Amino acid sequence: MSTKSPEQLSDLLRCPIGQIDVRDFDPHATPGRPNSNGKDEENDMTSELEPLLDDLQERLFAAGTRDVNAPKVLLILQGLDTAGKGGTIRHVIGMMDPQGVRIHSFKRPTSQELAHDFLWRVERELPRGGQVGIFDRSHYEDVLIQRVDHLARADEIERRYGAINDFEAELVGSGTVVVKCFLNISRGEQKKRLTERLSNPKKFFKYDPSDVDVANKWDAYMDAYSIALSRCNIEAAPWYVIPANHKRYRNWAITHLLIEALASLKLGWPAADFDVDFERSRVEALRSR
Amino acid sequence: MSTKSPEQLSDLLRCPIGQIDVRDFDPHATPGRPNSNGKDEENDMTSELEPLLDDLQERLFAAGTRDVNAPKVLLILQGLDTAGKGGTIRHVIGMMDPQGVRIHSFKRPTSQELAHDFLWRVERELPRGGQVGIFDRSHYEDVLIQRVDHLARADEIERRYGAINDFEAELVGSGTVVVKCFLNISRGEQKKRLTERLSNPKKFFKYDPSDVDVANKWDAYMDAYSIALSRCNIEAAPWYVIPANHKRYRNWAITHLLIEALASLKLGWPAADFDVDFERSRVEALRSR
Repeated sequence: MSTKSPEQLSDLLRCPIGQIDVRDFDPHATPGRPNSNGKDEENDMTSELEPLLDDLQERLFAAGTRDVNAPKVLLILQGLDTAGKGGTIRHVIGMMDPQGVRIHSFKRPTSQELAHDFLWRVERELPRGGQVGIFDRSHYEDVLIQRVDHLARADEIERRYGAINDFEAELVGSGTVVVKCFLNISRGEQKKRLTERLSNPKKFFKYDPSDVDVANKWDAYMDAYSIALSRCNIEAAPWYVIPANHKRYRNWAITHLLIEALASLKLGWPAADFDVDFERSRVEALRSR
Repeated sequence: MSTKSPEQLSDLLRCPIGQIDVRDFDPHATPGRPNSNGKDEENDMTSELEPLLDDLQERLFAAGTRDVNAPKVLLILQGLDTAGKGGTIRHVIGMMDPQGVRIHSFKRPTSQELAHDFLWRVERELPRGGQVGIFDRSHYEDVLIQRVDHLARADEIERRYGAINDFEAELVGSGTVVVKCFLNISRGEQKKRLTERLSNPKKFFKYDPSDVDVANKWDAYMDAYSIALSRCNIEAAPWYVIPANHKRYRNWAITHLLIEALASLKLGWPAADFDVDFERSRVEALRSR
């Protein structure tokens, strides 16, 4: 069987424990992708998963309505410019009921944020019970751009890897399933996507001249990602390396990982915290006009 | 022509200026609904609007990426339990790119919120430039349940109508298009929907025994809504009465109103704030492997 069941995809995409180099992962790969009679590109494999995703998310949302300590899911999206963080939110998170979703996009820290520990602004944006939280960038920027551009002292950067592991272990311990995805694109694919943004006036707003400055530091970023993925790949909150040159594969894979995360909670529907028969009689007694 | 163009639907659904009684509006009506060869129910009229909604929302989102003072849209959803506030968010807002959407559900005020003016918690949840904000309930609860259940002094309730008008006029003046929808269902429809929630264990979490207490105050709520819609129906931020017994009509109508609101901004795509040719040459010079 070349087709993998949903339960196995996380194993295929999980970043190996130990020292890794993100350059060793193939951005073109499509591990676990189901065969579909040569119609891979046309088939909307992702939308087939929508009913299952929908059912699982609603169970989580339902749990949240009854219990502030209900479980949470946190999806962390990391990757270079054009890697597909926004597209993932649009296409994957866009399938979910927006009532149960909380998205935060981490920008350059404000002066208020810089006056606090680097995790301060992250804690404020965590999902609440019953929510699926999405981080478009995250605390990992504090060991990525901050490392590459020397925006913090070397010993402070060193300290952060351990602080992140402690923070995420605590998050998981308090009922959050953490799914960390590195969207892995190739230099060629990034160049192609930046070119597209400059070829279509509708896409100008997605382009920033600093994107090229960052692209020119490609190897420094690959080094920083390799260190982050090696040092912060704890069992409770593992990293997944998502081959992201193919957008449809990327969407399908992340949808699968979310389904696995939600399914791992094994949530039923909340029991009634009222007397159903009694309430039925009360509703039956309501006037209907 | 019995079919109304999108531009006219807001006129059809706008609550008349002056003293109104919400009981005079037909919850079963489907004003402006396009004829579709007898296939009204089957046709997914709403999803046909998705490409237009998508395009308009992306223009707003794009504006927000370039200008913190970009316009905003605020959709206020009000209605009794089961009127379809959650369903509207799921089906209408669910069509939008979640990156540009900010949803807030107003619950019973906390003690911290009660210690402030009633608009304090509302101001904190307003959409930012480029966002579509959705209020699931709103500051109108402060003249609805608070009036019905005498949770505030009569003179304070009186004061609030004017405060709301001032607040909303200020919002509109600072670049927010405000779309206020009263989801109008009949007593019979509400009874039916409450019964459904008690008939399916998957829906128990949506039921609260207090819903029946509220339902038994139907006339008091209709009075309170009539006063709110009469006194807070300012030209800058009009009320729409959405017949909501038919869920598909409700979704279609609100999608249309959102499209009209977004289209009224007449947004193009943001011009490049960089030298496009120069940036193309920089991208062209990037390594591709």
